Amino acid sequence: MIDNIHADPVEILRLLIRCPSVTPAEGGALGYLDALLSGAGFATHRVTLTAPDTPDIENLYARFGTRGPNLCFAGHTDVVPPGDPQHWRFPPFEGAIHDGLIYGRGAVDMKGGVAAFIAAGLDFARAHGNDPDHPDLPGSISFLLTGDEEGPAINGTEKLLRWLADRDERLDHCVLGEPSSRAALGDMVKIGRRGSLSCTLTVHGKQGHVGYPHLADNPIPGLITLLGALIAEPLDGGNAHFQASNLEIVSVDVGNPAFNVIPAQAQGRFNIRFNDLWTPQTLQAEIERRLNRAAGNSVRWSAAFEFRSSDSFLTAPGAFVDLVVASIAETTGQTPELSTTGGTSDARFIKDHCPVIEFGLVGTTMHAVDESTPIAQVQALTGVYAGIIARYFAEFGRR
Amino acid sequence: MIDNIHADPVEILRLLIRCPSVTPAEGGALGYLDALLSGAGFATHRVTLTAPDTPDIENLYARFGTRGPNLCFAGHTDVVPPGDPQHWRFPPFEGAIHDGLIYGRGAVDMKGGVAAFIAAGLDFARAHGNDPDHPDLPGSISFLLTGDEEGPAINGTEKLLRWLADRDERLDHCVLGEPSSRAALGDMVKIGRRGSLSCTLTVHGKQGHVGYPHLADNPIPGLITLLGALIAEPLDGGNAHFQASNLEIVSVDVGNPAFNVIPAQAQGRFNIRFNDLWTPQTLQAEIERRLNRAAGNSVRWSAAFEFRSSDSFLTAPGAFVDLVVASIAETTGQTPELSTTGGTSDARFIKDHCPVIEFGLVGTTMHAVDESTPIAQVQALTGVYAGIIARYFAEFGRR
Ligand SMILES: [Zn+2]
Ligand SMILES: [Zn+2]
Repeated sequence: MIDNIHADPVEILRLLIRCPSVTPAEGGALGYLDALLSGAGFATHRVTLTAPDTPDIENLYARFGTRGPNLCFAGHTDVVPPGDPQHWRFPPFEGAIHDGLIYGRGAVDMKGGVAAFIAAGLDFARAHGNDPDHPDLPGSISFLLTGDEEGPAINGTEKLLRWLADRDERLDHCVLGEPSSRAALGDMVKIGRRGSLSCTLTVHGKQGHVGYPHLADNPIPGLITLLGALIAEPLDGGNAHFQASNLEIVSVDVGNPAFNVIPAQAQGRFNIRFNDLWTPQTLQAEIERRLNRAAGNSVRWSAAFEFRSSDSFLTAPGAFVDLVVASIAETTGQTPELSTTGGTSDARFIKDHCPVIEFGLVGTTMHAVDESTPIAQVQALTGVYAGIIARYFAEFGRR
Repeated sequence: MIDNIHADPVEILRLLIRCPSVTPAEGGALGYLDALLSGAGFATHRVTLTAPDTPDIENLYARFGTRGPNLCFAGHTDVVPPGDPQHWRFPPFEGAIHDGLIYGRGAVDMKGGVAAFIAAGLDFARAHGNDPDHPDLPGSISFLLTGDEEGPAINGTEKLLRWLADRDERLDHCVLGEPSSRAALGDMVKIGRRGSLSCTLTVHGKQGHVGYPHLADNPIPGLITLLGALIAEPLDGGNAHFQASNLEIVSVDVGNPAFNVIPAQAQGRFNIRFNDLWTPQTLQAEIERRLNRAAGNSVRWSAAFEFRSSDSFLTAPGAFVDLVVASIAETTGQTPELSTTGGTSDARFIKDHCPVIEFGLVGTTMHAVDESTPIAQVQALTGVYAGIIARYFAEFGRR
């Protein structure tokens, strides 16, 4: 019975972990997936992206089927460094299996998710004879895989999406396989993300000697006043889908080693994670308003907002969210929380091209020593992704 | 008429400027003065002082006369670096004279003052036949000269004074020849100095990701609160001899380059110049009181007070101050302000041994490019110092 021959996500994961793909190294991971997918009838594209002052990065796009709708699974094969391998229970690039867990850097973030959706995609392809022109195909599935998510993310998903758009390659919906679950597989999906805006605030004074403060202008009290004003009042109270926006001062810097010198300038650096009550533009205006009000005529300041800010986004509840939730419930018994919390992800780029939802493994051990995931969870995640594929084409596919 | 043969302070200054005695280099300056003074009947002592991790420093003590009282003139021959000589109108170690000004690094701070009191001292010695056992000598005059005032001041005046005390060498009164005048020679003498206390304040938090601030504990808002509390209220209002104590925050430091990381700790560094309403101990207690009150139970902090703090001091108006003021008035026509303002000086060490007053040139160009002083001002200062010597022995000398 051909239906019982399933691709093995654990074996795929094990082979991926054995590829030492620490950003920016490809480590063999994308080459392995390229071979696996092209052998199963996928059209694959290896795309090496470059930019000045950054390492060249390999990426992979693979599609099975030539017609729409195109359901895309997105992810990354690069991983953060393992640190000292001596601190690991098992070697970080071995994929050791012990007591039902598979160990290795990337097991959770996110070679586990990649292995699960690749396995589900291979099953889908085989169910159609590994023939991308099979007459019964209800649409296409594709994989968008980058090697630059944990790094500067300059030669990764954002550019790869532009590369696809330039070729009129359309994505209709996307599932990003980042570890989204909190304590149990299926307890949370991310249907949006807060935006991120970063700024370096400089207060300008006049250098001098501490013995003669009237001849100098110490910028530090002004910096304290301005930063205090920024955090004095909350930006908002959040809304139905988003928690309140939050400003964190991440650094204050003068770097003056001398106790007898009043410095010429002082800097504060802050980052704001903001909800959909703001855009980067309205938020920047609010920050400048608060700074102007606090500074009055006595504090001279300038603010440099980072070029790479990201807007918030929300994939509003509806048919796509519903079918993901139903697939999760079917396999795991969980009713996932629809969340927009946490850090940014490549969904911030994907959302400009199509609706995107993030769902994947429990993230507890990501980036840590002894990163590991239960084998059963990888298998269950494969089942969820297979269910998403089935329900997606039942809902949106060609008849 | 032997009375008309005066030592020439301008020639002494010119030769001193030609010694490139940038701290810690002796540059020939002390060797020159040693020869000059021993030739005039002074007993001289070259004292090389050492300490781990600091350069060895040469110092000079010279005394004319063997009986008390001993009037000491103190100063330093080391200078700060000249910077790029190209920026100078005349070479910084040449001693060029132009339009009535003598140019060079140290002309003001304080080879000018040294040249003036050396010239006055040579005249005093010659008036007694260059014979330190001359029966008419009303006491002694001495010179305490260090090569480590502009540097760490570890192998300089403080240790040299201890070296003298160990040899039962007693100073009765001291004039420190630092540039004390503001706009015209004689408009200000320093009869005391504020103390100095430095502290590094650390606020302890917990590192984390800006996307999950509830899992972290950002130390920066706490640092802002504590530093704000330190400068919210003045320490005091000053008194008859001292201006108000002043706290300057000289640095704030985190050094976190990442906008997505909440740091684990944050530091502030501050220095207090304080008057005689405080001791370092009472001031430290007040700082800790303010920090405790502002921190409450929510901010975890620690404060490291610098080992090398200095107490304030005051040479109370009286006979010694009066005779200095009278000598200044006689030569310059000025009634000097009795001041305790400005930075610290080696007077902070001398005050533990005898009453000390600071009087010297107009300090405007000190440490600057084209440091220079009017020749007439060096000559007038020599006259003031000669007047101080005469009045001192009239007041305190043996009959
Ligand atoms: Zn990831
Ligand atoms: Zn000086």
